[in-house]
Amino acid sequence: MPVILPSGSDVVDAYNTIKNYVHQTPVLTCQSINRLTGCEVYFKCENLQKVGAFKYRGATNAVLSLTKEQMAKGVATHSSGNHAAALALAARMNGVKAFIVMPENAPEIKKKAVDGYGAEITYCQPTLEAREATLATVIETTGATLVHPYNQWEVICGQGTAALELMQQQPHLDSVITPVGGGGLLSGTATYLKGMFPQVKVLAGEPQMADDAYRSFKSGSFYPVVNPDTIADGLRTSLGNLTFEVIMHKVDDIYTVGEDSIRNAMRLVWERMKIIIEPSSAVPLAAIIDNKQVFANSRVGLIVSGGNVDLDHLPF
Amino acid sequence: MPVILPSGSDVVDAYNTIKNYVHQTPVLTCQSINRLTGCEVYFKCENLQKVGAFKYRGATNAVLSLTKEQMAKGVATHSSGNHAAALALAARMNGVKAFIVMPENAPEIKKKAVDGYGAEITYCQPTLEAREATLATVIETTGATLVHPYNQWEVICGQGTAALELMQQQPHLDSVITPVGGGGLLSGTATYLKGMFPQVKVLAGEPQMADDAYRSFKSGSFYPVVNPDTIADGLRTSLGNLTFEVIMHKVDDIYTVGEDSIRNAMRLVWERMKIIIEPSSAVPLAAIIDNKQVFANSRVGLIVSGGNVDLDHLPF
Repeated sequence: MPVILPSGSDVVDAYNTIKNYVHQTPVLTCQSINRLTGCEVYFKCENLQKVGAFKYRGATNAVLSLTKEQMAKGVATHSSGNHAAALALAARMNGVKAFIVMPENAPEIKKKAVDGYGAEITYCQPTLEAREATLATVIETTGATLVHPYNQWEVICGQGTAALELMQQQPHLDSVITPVGGGGLLSGTATYLKGMFPQVKVLAGEPQMADDAYRSFKSGSFYPVVNPDTIADGLRTSLGNLTFEVIMHKVDDIYTVGEDSIRNAMRLVWERMKIIIEPSSAVPLAAIIDNKQVFANSRVGLIVSGGNVDLDHLPF
Repeated sequence: MPVILPSGSDVVDAYNTIKNYVHQTPVLTCQSINRLTGCEVYFKCENLQKVGAFKYRGATNAVLSLTKEQMAKGVATHSSGNHAAALALAARMNGVKAFIVMPENAPEIKKKAVDGYGAEITYCQPTLEAREATLATVIETTGATLVHPYNQWEVICGQGTAALELMQQQPHLDSVITPVGGGGLLSGTATYLKGMFPQVKVLAGEPQMADDAYRSFKSGSFYPVVNPDTIADGLRTSLGNLTFEVIMHKVDDIYTVGEDSIRNAMRLVWERMKIIIEPSSAVPLAAIIDNKQVFANSRVGLIVSGGNVDLDHLPF
């Protein structure tokens, strides 16, 4: 049975649902980065979103889409971090319980944030299998509703609202680039842009060390990775079947980048822009720097996915 | 002879001069910091200004106020860092030469920035006397016009434009707090607010280890400090006679804070707000946290002065 993909107006609906609950994050520019890249980069700063990540958009849209009966039993998810914090806070803001399955090796700062938002945490092995098995048990016990970190339409459309705001703030873009891990941000962005601004190219950056989206996109068949090892901890997940479908239909290209490129791009943003971005957020900038000819003299929107970094363990 | 102080409309004039040259920086809020402080804090993010500091406003206003003859000979200054970078860039943007005297112990990142903007740097001992003597020699040799880091009306009025923008972005404030070092930002802020919004209290935070402004303000007589030792490297300077006059007439109160309070407030902002602020910028937040009863339930504008930090030498 073919999957029916959401449209640009589904993202508009999500925006109307969540807009009073989320920060309208600023769009920043940096002359020295523009000089270095040879293009104009417009940074949509979702690191300055609540919980420090775009994930708060999707989580909020998912919680606000629940029935009263579902709200009474709570929400549950597995996440390496940002989605966990996002769902925990989105749930608390609506008086809903949150049950979170986290891999043991998640960054301390993310564990602390989830705990601080009052969620109930269950730790598991850092594999997709362990996370899914543990989550199934939690859901069976509690009756909570799964809010998937990316493979769910309410979540995907919620993430797409960052691109919607970006186009309001900076309408004249030639392309928009995001990182891709599970694909929620990328497919939400593609859903909105291909629906509303089809002339804008939708691109993604992905770590070479976790290049499942790149391989899936290039080969046309779903290609999960197992235990990828990249400093971009938010991008260690594989695509889901829904995000894969959207990406195959609506994304123009995906670029992979090495670990050093990610580290250098991250430090560049910290030093030049004075904003804290996590390694995952440096991946699209690394892709621009490594592929200057593709972006030359164009206007590129870059969605900065998050800023949750353990300050005691910086990668540079 | 009594000094004639500038008025709120002088700051409006400065704003009209520089507004197309500076970033309109965002105003950010943070729920968890509001919860911690017991008030609403609106962060005017001049760390996201060009060169990473409000100083770009005053320097730009000073350069644009020069005659053609003065522009031909260049500008000169002494500065522990941010003003140096600001003047170097403001000069370069207008094809003007910049001669900068810097103390040898200025942070590496600030030295590199000034050098990167094409200024000619002369290093000196880290005392006010050495800086002034070296600068006098440079000016005698080059014929360049002095642009003082703070004790000059064009500079003071330029710095006041951050408060002007803040009031446009968030008109309902009970008070505005800034750090105070040489007093340029504080006196510019006070000049604008007492002229245009006299009901808004104008406050400052200062390191206990460099409390010359506090002592001068409380005693009513100018009180310089010598070689103050604080991590807030931007606040090691003493007031000038002009900033002292404005502060005595137009500032409501000054609070001093200890080094640990500064360090904790700085880390809090990094972790919670995902923006990079330098130690000096953490001083006003430290003052709020240490004096919660003063700010309880009020709306406080906080001018974040800068984000220039040596990432290899963080104070936490």
